[in-house]
Amino acid sequence: MTGTDTDVVAIGNAIVDVLAKADDAFLARFGLAKGAMTLIDAQRADALYGAMGPGIECSGGSAANTVAGLASLGGRAAYIGKVRRDQLGEVFRHDIRAAGVAFDTSPAEDGPPTARCLIFVTPDAQRTMQTFLGACVELGPGDVAPHAVRAAQITYLEGYLWDKPAAKAAFRTAVEIAHQAGRKVALTLSDPFCVERHRAEFRDLVEHHVDVLFANEAEITALYEEKTFDAALGHVRGRPDRLAALTRSSKGSVVVANGEAHEVAAERVARVVDTTGAGDLYAAGFLYGLTQGRDLPSCGRIGAIAAAEIISHYGARPEVSLAALVKSKPG
Amino acid sequence: MTGTDTDVVAIGNAIVDVLAKADDAFLARFGLAKGAMTLIDAQRADALYGAMGPGIECSGGSAANTVAGLASLGGRAAYIGKVRRDQLGEVFRHDIRAAGVAFDTSPAEDGPPTARCLIFVTPDAQRTMQTFLGACVELGPGDVAPHAVRAAQITYLEGYLWDKPAAKAAFRTAVEIAHQAGRKVALTLSDPFCVERHRAEFRDLVEHHVDVLFANEAEITALYEEKTFDAALGHVRGRPDRLAALTRSSKGSVVVANGEAHEVAAERVARVVDTTGAGDLYAAGFLYGLTQGRDLPSCGRIGAIAAAEIISHYGARPEVSLAALVKSKPG
Repeated sequence: MTGTDTDVVAIGNAIVDVLAKADDAFLARFGLAKGAMTLIDAQRADALYGAMGPGIECSGGSAANTVAGLASLGGRAAYIGKVRRDQLGEVFRHDIRAAGVAFDTSPAEDGPPTARCLIFVTPDAQRTMQTFLGACVELGPGDVAPHAVRAAQITYLEGYLWDKPAAKAAFRTAVEIAHQAGRKVALTLSDPFCVERHRAEFRDLVEHHVDVLFANEAEITALYEEKTFDAALGHVRGRPDRLAALTRSSKGSVVVANGEAHEVAAERVARVVDTTGAGDLYAAGFLYGLTQGRDLPSCGRIGAIAAAEIISHYGARPEVSLAALVKSKPG
Repeated sequence: MTGTDTDVVAIGNAIVDVLAKADDAFLARFGLAKGAMTLIDAQRADALYGAMGPGIECSGGSAANTVAGLASLGGRAAYIGKVRRDQLGEVFRHDIRAAGVAFDTSPAEDGPPTARCLIFVTPDAQRTMQTFLGACVELGPGDVAPHAVRAAQITYLEGYLWDKPAAKAAFRTAVEIAHQAGRKVALTLSDPFCVERHRAEFRDLVEHHVDVLFANEAEITALYEEKTFDAALGHVRGRPDRLAALTRSSKGSVVVANGEAHEVAAERVARVVDTTGAGDLYAAGFLYGLTQGRDLPSCGRIGAIAAAEIISHYGARPEVSLAALVKSKPG
């Protein structure tokens, strides 16, 4: 195994978020599944956008948020994802590079526009996501630059990639390259509905191909079809060679390694404004700790600090230097 | 004079803001005039955007912010401005309509893209604006829908329009239609550098064509080439038939009518985050009070409340219902 020049390369759906406030009546009127990510087509996206309140646009995409967070923590990050050559694609490209993440995937020259995720933030700070995948459907194995994967300690993948055949093939290609180079593969299950859509394949992935697993309570119970977190945790503990970080919102997280579970407290937040990106930034902090050789409770704690920052404001990219934030919170 | 179905129609440069944090060293490195609005070309916009940190996009444009604020206060608002038919143009169109403002100007089908303003927010909450006017240069007299101007109690114009010949002609057309219909014309001087560029013409406008003048301290002293606010105020008081609202940041505002000056205190703000839009929202509150027949100190107070909301967060469009906010602050 040769040296690495990247800590984490992430592969995911490259998305620009459009955030607006909404109330529960709005979600009910349009039949939106609160707290979940739902895929929509262009027509539905237009209709929902027409009904949406005034918005703000900012770069998003789950795995992209994670590597932006990793870079803010001081990690060496790269990203693979597909935008189209259009204005929102330019916004995505600018923001991820400005965050310090290497991003060289060539944009699509035609076809659907850059992906957008309409995010409705309710007064309880929950986010309900409606994603038009747009140019993301063009991501394929050819976009997975082998040198970029080989150069990274960890290749981090979104479960969301599983929703499109070409992206799924890209996912499998990346796993193969990473493991052949002796690197680790990390996966986030992304969303409970995403798990429902692909449960059998996700179980196989988790069983045979993933070294580090990220999931929240709803996702891990969906994966193992269990009713309680503890029951799902039993399945995770049964695989001593796998590392897993399971997040539980205000209840903190549980890090599982060698069959042992370590509980990590959530970081206190003065006011939760928008939970968009909480899981993405937890993963950022955890992966940063891991690639820096920190012990597992420390990895979980850095994840908790990064998640706390992101839920204290709108949007899923950090507004402050996470490196400075972590430094300000020793222990 | 027939009845009106709009309180204020605004005409301005239709712009999408791109906000990012920057420090004073960044402003110095690129020679940016702090606190001012500078016009830049596409090439300079690309270079600055390339150097800019991760951003958020939100609809802006001075007069557009004002009518969005007016609508949030419960006023009946319309807007005339030019975007191109592109993604950022769609964002602008969506946001202003979603704010409750009538907006029917047809987008440009070709030519430069929708205007962008790169806004660098420094830790002192000052904003430094670099504007690429893009499709705004296509705004001309043909876009000034006579029925829209006639239908409004007040036609509100940006000094910024004066920077391009066709927009200036649109400005003059609007003034003529408004006055022929017995309506009032309001002007904001926009920016001290803008005043420097067009001083003689602005003086003529203010002398002969404007019923309600908005300016901040830097703009009004630039207009009259005076060193102090009080000296400039003397010029304003000398015109008893004109109404003027002069803003002074934390020192509040001075409303001048019939040669009398009324001082209005600034509204207290827990933490000033970003001063983008402070003047725009003051004008929104003032115009709302005016079109509702409120007394002048009340108009200034509503302006102060709206301005305080906008500077407490990033971006120049209100994040809460200004009507509810004003209602919560009686007196």
